[in-house]
Amino acid sequence: MDNRVYIFDTTLRDGEQVPGCQLNTVEKIQVAKALEALGVDVIEAGFPISSPGDFNSVIEISKAVTWPTICALTRAVEKDIDVAAEALKFAKHKRIHTGIGTSDSHIKFKFNSNRDEIIERAVRAVKYARRYVDDVEFYAEDAGRTDNDYLARVVEAVIKAGATVVNIPDTTGYCLPQEYGAKIKYLVDHVDGIENAIISTHCHNDLGMATANTMAGVLNGARQTEVTINGIGERAGNTSLEEVVMILKCHKGIGIDTNINTKHIYPLSRMVSSLMNMPVQPNKAIVGRNAFAHSSGIHQDGVIKNVSTYEIIDPHDVGIDDNSIVLTARSGRAALRHRLEELGVKIEGEKLDATYEQFLKLADKKKEINDDDLLMLVGADVAKTNHVKIDFMQVTSGVGVQPMASIGLDIAGEKFTAAATGNGPVDAAINALKNIIHRTMILKELTIQSISKGSDDTCKVHVQVENDGHVYYGFAANTDIVCATVEAYVDCINRFHAVHSSK
Amino acid sequence: MDNRVYIFDTTLRDGEQVPGCQLNTVEKIQVAKALEALGVDVIEAGFPISSPGDFNSVIEISKAVTWPTICALTRAVEKDIDVAAEALKFAKHKRIHTGIGTSDSHIKFKFNSNRDEIIERAVRAVKYARRYVDDVEFYAEDAGRTDNDYLARVVEAVIKAGATVVNIPDTTGYCLPQEYGAKIKYLVDHVDGIENAIISTHCHNDLGMATANTMAGVLNGARQTEVTINGIGERAGNTSLEEVVMILKCHKGIGIDTNINTKHIYPLSRMVSSLMNMPVQPNKAIVGRNAFAHSSGIHQDGVIKNVSTYEIIDPHDVGIDDNSIVLTARSGRAALRHRLEELGVKIEGEKLDATYEQFLKLADKKKEINDDDLLMLVGADVAKTNHVKIDFMQVTSGVGVQPMASIGLDIAGEKFTAAATGNGPVDAAINALKNIIHRTMILKELTIQSISKGSDDTCKVHVQVENDGHVYYGFAANTDIVCATVEAYVDCINRFHAVHSSK
Repeated sequence: MDNRVYIFDTTLRDGEQVPGCQLNTVEKIQVAKALEALGVDVIEAGFPISSPGDFNSVIEISKAVTWPTICALTRAVEKDIDVAAEALKFAKHKRIHTGIGTSDSHIKFKFNSNRDEIIERAVRAVKYARRYVDDVEFYAEDAGRTDNDYLARVVEAVIKAGATVVNIPDTTGYCLPQEYGAKIKYLVDHVDGIENAIISTHCHNDLGMATANTMAGVLNGARQTEVTINGIGERAGNTSLEEVVMILKCHKGIGIDTNINTKHIYPLSRMVSSLMNMPVQPNKAIVGRNAFAHSSGIHQDGVIKNVSTYEIIDPHDVGIDDNSIVLTARSGRAALRHRLEELGVKIEGEKLDATYEQFLKLADKKKEINDDDLLMLVGADVAKTNHVKIDFMQVTSGVGVQPMASIGLDIAGEKFTAAATGNGPVDAAINALKNIIHRTMILKELTIQSISKGSDDTCKVHVQVENDGHVYYGFAANTDIVCATVEAYVDCINRFHAVHSSK
Repeated sequence: MDNRVYIFDTTLRDGEQVPGCQLNTVEKIQVAKALEALGVDVIEAGFPISSPGDFNSVIEISKAVTWPTICALTRAVEKDIDVAAEALKFAKHKRIHTGIGTSDSHIKFKFNSNRDEIIERAVRAVKYARRYVDDVEFYAEDAGRTDNDYLARVVEAVIKAGATVVNIPDTTGYCLPQEYGAKIKYLVDHVDGIENAIISTHCHNDLGMATANTMAGVLNGARQTEVTINGIGERAGNTSLEEVVMILKCHKGIGIDTNINTKHIYPLSRMVSSLMNMPVQPNKAIVGRNAFAHSSGIHQDGVIKNVSTYEIIDPHDVGIDDNSIVLTARSGRAALRHRLEELGVKIEGEKLDATYEQFLKLADKKKEINDDDLLMLVGADVAKTNHVKIDFMQVTSGVGVQPMASIGLDIAGEKFTAAATGNGPVDAAINALKNIIHRTMILKELTIQSISKGSDDTCKVHVQVENDGHVYYGFAANTDIVCATVEAYVDCINRFHAVHSSK
């Protein structure tokens, strides 16, 4: 069997169905080009009959992208297939993805039909699609709850009718891995002519097992996996592209490869999160902010002694800049020494022990220990890192009002003030700040997070700025959301300064 | 073998190690009491030697909680065990959780030791802990990368020394499910006296397979699973309690139960997210905001015809109020009719077809269609739902400034103005609004979300308010974060009004 799995990305179709995640055509082209650079084999670009916007997006993506196959979704309905074929006319490599529900509950409740009639409709749709294109994928919707014997009959019939790929979706996300793997194996073992088609997995994450089900499919003979960036998708989402790709990369013993250039994973994850305004939770595997952060003392000692002890993926492999270690009450001595060295302070032996004890006491009071706290602990010149301080700030915004901000900064003892307008209070305040500090810092990412039971709770802001290819992280927490954002930005500037003046 | 799996919750220990998620003692007690109400069997309350705060939390949780066993973590070090035993003195049921790394990489790099010496240290620690308590759990850290033969020797030795539970952590989150399952099976088959102890799983989610690995463990004989609420934990997190519990509940065929009252899952998920200020991504299985939302037309027809077609978990079973259906360009005719009925408008036949066509065109332009849009489409009295409108608003905040807001509302044509101060601009604006609208609405949740590449991008706000036991959801998007929040709050008020005046 082929030792290569094809990656079929459906971020722009199944992923885009998520409420609030719809992209316009320009944004879809941007994602499609990034998917091409990532190295996916197939891009599912839309469901052309569903709306004029989807139709147009498939046309424009077909024009914009060269290497991947462009796939368009249809129901097993002639009109759908006509429209899909029309939308695909500019694609260099094209595929029509048609199908119908095959579980008893679909046949009965959705189609008010019977098993034989469903097979007829499936065969008719595949043959009709083959009139337009050579590459036709068939999906057996709700295959996860279709009994294996009938599913094999459907699959055999559509392959005979010309399907080149057969997609076995676990539409409800209900399967256990051994169950889903056994289903794929059943098809491999019982379908006449199965060698003429590629079996595809399409798993949903309703019970948190989409990735494991996909892997079970691959281990049993599937050679295409339908996935999305960040695992976005309806309800609990689809299988995560990044998880499947990195499992195959880490577990070389499986002996199956993909065409993915993993260094593009993280940047693309951020692009999709930002365009869809869909947060990636910090503990998301591979692409979450914490995925490669270590805070436990026991673990941190391990990390510093030997990366391979705890880290199976080098963050660089997925396009992440640094292996950030956040210091907390659980951080070990080695982590403390390591971070102080980064800040230009070398301590050893008894002095390290004494500092570590002080550190633990402080960490017990404060949730996170920042660089200033550390420098204070070792008696270094703190003012140096608090290079920029906010003296005052006043921000006005509202409805029917132009947002505006004035700010006063103390930079190494000198006083500066400036004012600016903006699209909102945060934008106005940052603009005012930039009127004072002209350093070319590119605001790469600004994450504002507040989950609270009232309007007066603390909110957290993470900022990432880039200067000369280096990325600096800033953080602040405040009950005032605008202040928190500006403080986080100033935190970035101070970190930048600390690194440049102490090294 | 026992058909009951014990749920060991480590939200307050392994979960709390996440940077920025540290809780104070009062908050920990709140979570512990909620875990008790949820029905967990064991609460891992902390790592007492690691800090005075952790020590104190274990003491206070021990006092506050009655039924679950309270567990305290230690290294295989006498001093750790002494401190843990002291911290557990008030617990009604107590367990010490001690252990040591058993993989070659741990033995060599972390302990600079050898296999036999590690077994000696393990046995010594277990015996020492048994002097204090009858219930001792042993963890073989990095068991996932420990070869099965040596692991079996370790496990046999610690059970002989008195361990009542043996924990087999996949510390790096690197195992594949079949690999982890085989490891548990190997222990069941090869360890003398294994029937005298419970085997526990402890899986991490670095490759997105923690839940599948845990299930593989259970299917092969493990009868305790170590889990956290929302799957929080270091790096990509631990196994999600809610996923494992709901898999066992859905897949009755497995024949294994837990003691969990699932109706408490969702409220506890929100409590942990809010206290730790740790967002749950919308597509998180079971507890994400979208977990039970359906937006695709094909699917929505299915949902409305027969819930069992697509929904395997009834949202009520996990404590969620409603099965919210968000209307988008992908929504089906049935979903449109259903929503209009909810709004008090009944249309059928040709009128429905015409409205559906208009709806599709609008949905293609707008990302989400809200209730106002729908009522406009069918020509209903829109003013009725836009009962409250914001005429003007002005908000001032900053550093060294008392946040204050003035607001002008148009309520069914009458004009009102008010002003207030607050902890931040959002709080001030909401307070001003409450000075006009006195209805007792409890702000249950306020989620502000902004992930952007610059400071001028749109941010999204979700608000949830409760009135008289009913929950209303509001949403707004605006480049001005303060405006967005107030608009979302007003959206809630209007929804409340729409429901009360049109039904």
